[in-house]
Amino acid sequence: MYRKFFEELQASICQKLTLIDGSKDFITDNWSRPTGSNIEDGGGITRVLEKGQIFEKAGVNFSEVRGKLPPSMSKVLTGHIEPQEYWAMGVSLVIHPYSPLVPTTHANLRYLQVGEFQWFGGGMDLTPYYLFPEDCKHFHTTLKNACDKFNPECYAKYKENCDTYFYLPHRQETRGIGGLFFDYLGKGEDNIHEKYFPLLELLAPALMQAYLPIVEKRQDLSFTPEQKHFQLLRRGRYAEFNLAFDRGTKFGLETGGRTESILMSLPPEVIWEYNYLPVPGSPEEELINTLKSPRDWI
Amino acid sequence: MYRKFFEELQASICQKLTLIDGSKDFITDNWSRPTGSNIEDGGGITRVLEKGQIFEKAGVNFSEVRGKLPPSMSKVLTGHIEPQEYWAMGVSLVIHPYSPLVPTTHANLRYLQVGEFQWFGGGMDLTPYYLFPEDCKHFHTTLKNACDKFNPECYAKYKENCDTYFYLPHRQETRGIGGLFFDYLGKGEDNIHEKYFPLLELLAPALMQAYLPIVEKRQDLSFTPEQKHFQLLRRGRYAEFNLAFDRGTKFGLETGGRTESILMSLPPEVIWEYNYLPVPGSPEEELINTLKSPRDWI
Repeated sequence: MYRKFFEELQASICQKLTLIDGSKDFITDNWSRPTGSNIEDGGGITRVLEKGQIFEKAGVNFSEVRGKLPPSMSKVLTGHIEPQEYWAMGVSLVIHPYSPLVPTTHANLRYLQVGEFQWFGGGMDLTPYYLFPEDCKHFHTTLKNACDKFNPECYAKYKENCDTYFYLPHRQETRGIGGLFFDYLGKGEDNIHEKYFPLLELLAPALMQAYLPIVEKRQDLSFTPEQKHFQLLRRGRYAEFNLAFDRGTKFGLETGGRTESILMSLPPEVIWEYNYLPVPGSPEEELINTLKSPRDWI
Repeated sequence: MYRKFFEELQASICQKLTLIDGSKDFITDNWSRPTGSNIEDGGGITRVLEKGQIFEKAGVNFSEVRGKLPPSMSKVLTGHIEPQEYWAMGVSLVIHPYSPLVPTTHANLRYLQVGEFQWFGGGMDLTPYYLFPEDCKHFHTTLKNACDKFNPECYAKYKENCDTYFYLPHRQETRGIGGLFFDYLGKGEDNIHEKYFPLLELLAPALMQAYLPIVEKRQDLSFTPEQKHFQLLRRGRYAEFNLAFDRGTKFGLETGGRTESILMSLPPEVIWEYNYLPVPGSPEEELINTLKSPRDWI
C-alpha cells in the first residue's frame, strides 16, 4: 500500500518538474539490491534530470529495501544488540537549479520498520542563496497549512526539529532556512497507519506547492557571475552537511545502499575557497547572518 | 623541540612550492584557539596558495593545540572514560594542481599526547587522475628509500596501512595510488623520541622529493577539456573521502578545530554527475580499475 503511495508521489513530482523545466525529461534507472551490500531484498527507481533549462540537477528517488542492520545500528534503533531485520521505503528528492536566485530544495517521506518497531519520517527544507523573505514565508506557510490539518501543534515542533537537524556545527549555521523534519513518528505505538499516515497524505501534494511557485517567480531573473560564484561556494556547505552529518546519507552508505542514488543529493558543481568572507553589508552577508539564528518566517 | 621541527618543515615546503609555481606566494594566517571550541590553548599557522600558475590550491598547515577530549574519544584512545588532556602538533598539506595530468598529493606528520600516552603518526599519498606508472614508481621508491633507512620492514607495512586507510567503501576503490600511513607509533612505549622521531626526520625531506619531480615532469603537458572534466569528477571522490571518512578531519571538527584550516584539504572545484561511467578501454577506466586493487608500484 505504501509502495503505491510512494511510487505515485515520485511520478507526480517528476511530471511537475519536467513541465516547469520545459527542456528535458528525467532518466529512469530501475535497480535492485547492489551486489556486496547487506541489502537482502528490494531496489528502487532513481529518476534524475541533469542539465535542464532551469534545473542543473534534480533527483527524485523511490526505494524499498530489506535486510539486517549491523549490531551498532540495531542497538541505537531498537535497544537490541542482535542484528535486526529492517524494511525501509520512501521517496526523497533534491533539486539544484542553475540560477543562484532559485533556491535548492530537499524533501523526503519514508516508512521504516526495524525489529518490532515501525515509524514514519520525513520533511522538507529550503536552501536559498539569496534571500527573498516572501519566498521563505510562502514555503513555510504552505507546509504549515498542510500540517495544521493534521494537528495544529505539529508545525512548530517539526520546524524546530528541522532547524536543529540541518545544522553545520563547524560553520555554526543552518543549511538553509528550514522547513519541516520529523522522525520516529509512531515508534512503539499501535495503529500507526491510522494515526500518522494522514500526515504523509497531506504533505505529499504540499511539497511541490511549497516549492514550484518560488521557482516560477525567480527563474527568469537575471543574475551576475558573482552571484553564481556565491551559489557554488554555498553548495560546498551543502556537500559538507550531506557527507559529514546527514543521518540518511550515513544510513544509506552503511547499509550498502546504492551509492549513485544516495549521492545524487550532492550538488552538480561546487567550489571551496579558503576563508571566504562576504562583503560587509552585502546580500551574501545577510544570508549568512540569517542562517546563524533560526527565524519565524510566517 | 617538535615545534621547531614542524615549523621549519612547513616553511621549507612552502618555499619549494612557491619556487616551482613561479607566480604566487602563500598567504599566511596565524590563528589562536577558535572561540567556542574545546581547544584550551594553542593555535597554528595556516598557509595557502590559491590560483597559482600550477597549483590551483595548495595548503600547508602547522598547528599545536591542547585541550580535553570528549569522553567517547578519550575512551577509544586511552581506555579511560574521563575526559583526557591532549596535546597535538603537526604539519599537514594538500596540493591540488590545475592540470589533470599532475596528481594531487597529501602528507602529514604529527605528534600526539593523550592522557599518559604519546605517539607519532603521519604519511603521504598520491592521487593521480591519469596514470603514469613511472611517476607512481618514483613516488613509492622515494618514500621507501626514506623508510628503509629507518627500518627495512616498515615500508611494506605503512604502504598496506595507506591502502587500507584511504579507501572509499561505497565506491569500492582507494582514494589514490597510496603511499605511507602510520599511526600510534610508540604508543604505550618508553623513549619514543629516540626510537621513532628519526623516521619523521627521514620523511621530512622525502615528501617534496617524492612529489615535486612528478610536478616538473607533467606540468607543461597539454590536456583536453575532457581530461579536466574527469579530474573535477574525481575530485568529488576526494571530497567524499575527506568529509565522510577521514579520521583527521573528524578529529579536527569534533574537537572544535579551526574549520578553514581543516577544510583547506577540499578541492577548489568539484563536479558530481549522476552515475558517471568511463568509456570502456579508456585511460579513465584504467585509472578506476587500478584503484580497485592496490598494486606494488616498485
